[in-house]
Amino acid sequence: MSATLLKISCPDRVGLLARLTSFVAYHGGNLLEVHQFTDPLSGWFFARLAIDTGTLALDLPALRKAFKPTADELQADWTIRDETVKMRVVILVSKLGHCLADLLWRWRSGELPIDIPLVISNHEDFREMTEREGLRFEFVPTDDKAAAFEKMRELFRSVNAELIVLARYMQILPREICDEWPGRIINIHHSFLPSFVGANPYKRAYDRGVKLIGATCHYATAELDEGPIIDQEVVRVEHFHMPDDLLRLGRDCERLALARGVRYHIHDRVLIHGKKSIVFRD
Amino acid sequence: MSATLLKISCPDRVGLLARLTSFVAYHGGNLLEVHQFTDPLSGWFFARLAIDTGTLALDLPALRKAFKPTADELQADWTIRDETVKMRVVILVSKLGHCLADLLWRWRSGELPIDIPLVISNHEDFREMTEREGLRFEFVPTDDKAAAFEKMRELFRSVNAELIVLARYMQILPREICDEWPGRIINIHHSFLPSFVGANPYKRAYDRGVKLIGATCHYATAELDEGPIIDQEVVRVEHFHMPDDLLRLGRDCERLALARGVRYHIHDRVLIHGKKSIVFRD
Amino acid sequence: MSATLLKISCPDRVGLLARLTSFVAYHGGNLLEVHQFTDPLSGWFFARLAIDTGTLALDLPALRKAFKPTADELQADWTIRDETVKMRVVILVSKLGHCLADLLWRWRSGELPIDIPLVISNHEDFREMTEREGLRFEFVPTDDKAAAFEKMRELFRSVNAELIVLARYMQILPREICDEWPGRIINIHHSFLPSFVGANPYKRAYDRGVKLIGATCHYATAELDEGPIIDQEVVRVEHFHMPDDLLRLGRDCERLALARGVRYHIHDRVLIHGKKSIVFRD
Amino acid sequence: MSATLLKISCPDRVGLLARLTSFVAYHGGNLLEVHQFTDPLSGWFFARLAIDTGTLALDLPALRKAFKPTADELQADWTIRDETVKMRVVILVSKLGHCLADLLWRWRSGELPIDIPLVISNHEDFREMTEREGLRFEFVPTDDKAAAFEKMRELFRSVNAELIVLARYMQILPREICDEWPGRIINIHHSFLPSFVGANPYKRAYDRGVKLIGATCHYATAELDEGPIIDQEVVRVEHFHMPDDLLRLGRDCERLALARGVRYHIHDRVLIHGKKSIVFRD
Repeated sequence: MSATLLKISCPDRVGLLARLTSFVAYHGGNLLEVHQFTDPLSGWFFARLAIDTGTLALDLPALRKAFKPTADELQADWTIRDETVKMRVVILVSKLGHCLADLLWRWRSGELPIDIPLVISNHEDFREMTEREGLRFEFVPTDDKAAAFEKMRELFRSVNAELIVLARYMQILPREICDEWPGRIINIHHSFLPSFVGANPYKRAYDRGVKLIGATCHYATAELDEGPIIDQEVVRVEHFHMPDDLLRLGRDCERLALARGVRYHIHDRVLIHGKKSIVFRD
Repeated sequence: MSATLLKISCPDRVGLLARLTSFVAYHGGNLLEVHQFTDPLSGWFFARLAIDTGTLALDLPALRKAFKPTADELQADWTIRDETVKMRVVILVSKLGHCLADLLWRWRSGELPIDIPLVISNHEDFREMTEREGLRFEFVPTDDKAAAFEKMRELFRSVNAELIVLARYMQILPREICDEWPGRIINIHHSFLPSFVGANPYKRAYDRGVKLIGATCHYATAELDEGPIIDQEVVRVEHFHMPDDLLRLGRDCERLALARGVRYHIHDRVLIHGKKSIVFRD
Repeated sequence: MSATLLKISCPDRVGLLARLTSFVAYHGGNLLEVHQFTDPLSGWFFARLAIDTGTLALDLPALRKAFKPTADELQADWTIRDETVKMRVVILVSKLGHCLADLLWRWRSGELPIDIPLVISNHEDFREMTEREGLRFEFVPTDDKAAAFEKMRELFRSVNAELIVLARYMQILPREICDEWPGRIINIHHSFLPSFVGANPYKRAYDRGVKLIGATCHYATAELDEGPIIDQEVVRVEHFHMPDDLLRLGRDCERLALARGVRYHIHDRVLIHGKKSIVFRD
Repeated sequence: MSATLLKISCPDRVGLLARLTSFVAYHGGNLLEVHQFTDPLSGWFFARLAIDTGTLALDLPALRKAFKPTADELQADWTIRDETVKMRVVILVSKLGHCLADLLWRWRSGELPIDIPLVISNHEDFREMTEREGLRFEFVPTDDKAAAFEKMRELFRSVNAELIVLARYMQILPREICDEWPGRIINIHHSFLPSFVGANPYKRAYDRGVKLIGATCHYATAELDEGPIIDQEVVRVEHFHMPDDLLRLGRDCERLALARGVRYHIHDRVLIHGKKSIVFRD
C-alpha cells in the first residue's frame, strides 16, 4: 500500500483537524496514519497525514492544487509528497566511516528507501567502500575551504540533493549552504547536546567523568551544534572506560541516532519549528 | 484548562476521523490533543480526543447524547469523560509496600489525580502507613478465600470502585471479580512478561542468568499474567547480583511501571483490544 | 555475614594487589568482594575489599593499626570500616519532597541502612512527613544566609553528620561547609550534567528541544555543579512534553540517581579522585 | 601495551586472590586489570587478570608451566593467553545479513581484533559481500542435514576454528558439534530470552503485545536457546509497531548484543559456570 504524505504546520485554530481530515475524505482518501500535535505554549499546530494513495481521486499535482487555497488561508507551511518517490540523499564523510557504512548497509538492505547519488569526502579513505556499492564518490579536499564549499554546492545542485547527511563530516558547512538547504542538512554530533558542543566531546566527557555518553542527530544550521535536535542516544559508561572506549561505545550511539534521524526525515516525520523539531516517531 | 476526553474504538472506515473531529468542531470544541491509531492488520480504529471543556456548547450528558447515534452507527466502544472528575481507585497490597508507598506519594503530591476511597490488605502491615494519610484501610484475611473475595467484592461495590490496583497483592482475583471490573483491574507483575509467568520470577531470573530483569504492568484477567500489557520496565543486571539484589533493583522497575500504567489508565490513554492494549503515552 | 570494608587509593606500583590481599589473608580474612581499578592514564590505583568480619583475627582498631605502615609507605588514602555500623546521614530539603520521601521510604523499609539524625529545611512543608517517621526536623530559614549556614554547620557537628544529602535543597552551600565535609556532601542536580548547569534546567531543556532529560547525583563542591559525578539517569522525552511534563518525568530520574548515589557512598563503593569518581556499582 | 590474560574459575578458599596476584608479582608481572567474583551461593571463585606482557619474566609456555601446579591444586579451570594473538572466528549466516555485515565492519575497522578464516552459509546471498572483503565463503546447503553438518565440522576443524558465531544462522547445530566446541559457539537469538524461545519470536511478541522487545546473545548448547546468556539488549515498542517494525527495531538489538558478546568472549571476559556466565564487561 503506497502512501501520500501531507505534512503541515500553521497557527492553531478551532476545527483545523476537521478541515484537514474532511479535505482528505472529500477526495476519497483513506487515512493510514494521522499524527497531530498542538503546542499549547506557542499556539502552533502540526500534523502529518498518511493517505492511501490508491484511494485518492486526484493525482498529486491536482491534490496539491486543491489544497493550496486552504493552506494559504491557514498561512501554513506544508508539503504533499508521494512516499514511494525516494529522496535524493548526499552523504558527506571524513575519516571515520562507521556512520557511512551503517547508512550504506541500511540502504543496500532496503531498510532505508533513499537514492544516494553521491558520497563526498575530504579524504580518499572510503572511495572503495562507496564505489563497490556502485555509488559515485567525489573527493573534495578542504585545504582551500572557500573553493571546496563552492565545489560542493555545485555538486549538491548538480545531483538535485534533497537531503545532505553529515556522517561524521568534520567540517562546518558555511552559512550559504545551510541557507540554501534549510532543514535539509542532518548532522550527527558525537555528544549528548547541549553537553560538549564543539570539538573533542569524548575527551571532554572523559575529563568531566560523566556516567553516560551519547550522540545527537540534529539539523545543521550556521550556528555550531545549535540546530533543531531530531534524536539522541545514550549509553552508560563507567570509570574504567578510557577515551578510546568512549569512542568505541559512542560509535554505536552515533550510528543509531543518525539512522533514526535520517529515517524520520525521509518519511516526513519531522516538522521544524524554530529551534525545535516535532518528531512523529515510528 | 480542563479537558473532556472522548475515547473510542470501532471498525475502521473511510472518513472516520473527519466525522469525529467535525462532530467536535460542530459543538464548538477546541481540540487540545488528538491521538489516533488505525491497525492495518485488524482493521480497527482507535482514538482519544481531548477537548477543551470550556469551548464546548453542550454539557457532558448532552454531548454524550449527541454522540450516541454516531457511535451506534459505527458500532463503537466509547466513553466521554470529564478529566477533572477523579477516578475512584482501590489499592490492594500484601506484605511488600514499595508500590503502595509510591502510589500514595504520587497521590499526596498531586502527581496522580485520583481518589483513594480504600486500601485493602490481607495483612495488617500497612494499616498505619495508610491511615496516617487519612485513608481507609480494611484488613481482609485470605484464609478462607471464597469469603475473602466475597467480602472484597462488596467493598469494591460499596465504594464505587472504578479502578482496582493490585500493588503487589499476592493473590489471584477470582473470575467473578475480573468479569465485574473488566479492563479496570491493573496488576504489577515482577517480571518482564512473558518471561517468568507465575511465582518467584526473580529467583527464576537469577537461575536462568538473564542480563536484564523487569516488571510488567498489565490488566488482570482470569488467566494468570495473560492480560493486556500496559507498560514494562527493565534494568540491566550482572552476574554479581544475587536474588536479593534482583528484588531490590526490581522494586524500582515495579514502582515505575505501575505508576505509569495507572497514570495512563486514569487519563483514558489506554484502549484495550483483545489481548493487547493501545497506549497513547504522555 | 557482616563485612569489613577496606577502601584505598594510591599511586600504582607492581604487586600492589598482592600486598593488599596478602595482608588480608595473613590476618585470616576471607574476601567476599574485591574491586580494583588501575587508571592507566593517571597511574593511580583504586581498590575496595570486602572482608568477612568473622574470619578476621584482629578487631577493627588493631586491623587499622596493622595496616597503617603499609598505607603510609604506599602514600595511600584509605579507610577501614565496619559495614554494619550505620552512617549518620543528614538530609536537606526545600519545597520539593519527592527525593526526601523516596529516601525515607528506602530507609524505613530497610533498603538503605543509614541513621537519619536530622532533616533540615528552609521551609516547614515537610515537618510532618519527617516527624511522623520519628525523625527530628529543623527549620532553618535562609533569609539571612550567613546566619543560616552557621546554624547549619553547628547542627551538622552536633549530630556528628558523616554524610549530608541535598535532596533538592535549592541553596548552594558555602565553601566553609564544603571544605569541612569534603566528599561527604551529595547533591542531586535536575539535569544531565554538564548540560544545563545552574538554575531552571528543565525549562532550558524544553527550550533547547532535547530528546532526553536526566538527573545527576554528584558530590557538592564550592564550584556549582562541578563536583565528581556518582551516577546519572535519563529518560526519553518528546515534543509533546511540556515543561511540567519534564518536571514530572525528571522527578523519577532524580529519585533513582540520588538513591543509587547515596547507596554507593554508604557502602564505600565510591572513591573520589580529583574531579572524578570511581564507582564500584552493585 | 600488550596483555597476557589469565582466566580462572575454581572452588573458593581463603587467600585465593592473594595466591594469584602473588604468583603474578613473583614473575614480575604488572597487573593492568583485575576482575574477581566470588559467588556466595555456589561458593565458586572466578577471576580474570590482565598482565602487562612486557613485564613478565617468563614467556607464555613457561608461565603456563609455572602456573600448572597451583591450578591443579585448586582444581581450577583456567587459560593463559596472549591477547594480541587473534582468535580464529568462523561466522555462519543464512538469509539475514545485518549481523554479518555488522561483524565484518567491526572487523575491518579494527574494532574487533579477530581473524575470520571462513564464512559459511546455507544460501549464496552473502558470497559477494564476504568475498569482496577478501574472506573465504563456503556454501553448505542443508537439504541433507546430516551431510551438511558433517561437512561443516570438517570445515571448522580444517581452519582451526576457535569460535563459531551464529549470526542469524537459522539452523540448530547438532549435539556433536556443540560438544566439540563447548563454550565456543555464540548464537544471537532474536528475543529477550526466556521470552519467546524458538521460532518466530517477533511475531509472537507482536501477538502478545509486549512493550519492549529484545535480543539475546548466548552460548549455543544442544538445548535450544538454553545456553548461558552473555548479553541482552532491548528496545521500547508501541502499539503502532507492526511485526515488520519489530523486525527492523530488533535488528539493531541483535547487532549490538552479538557484537558485545563476541567482543567479551575474544577478550576472555566471559567465564561459563553451569547454565550461567560471568561477564567482566568493558
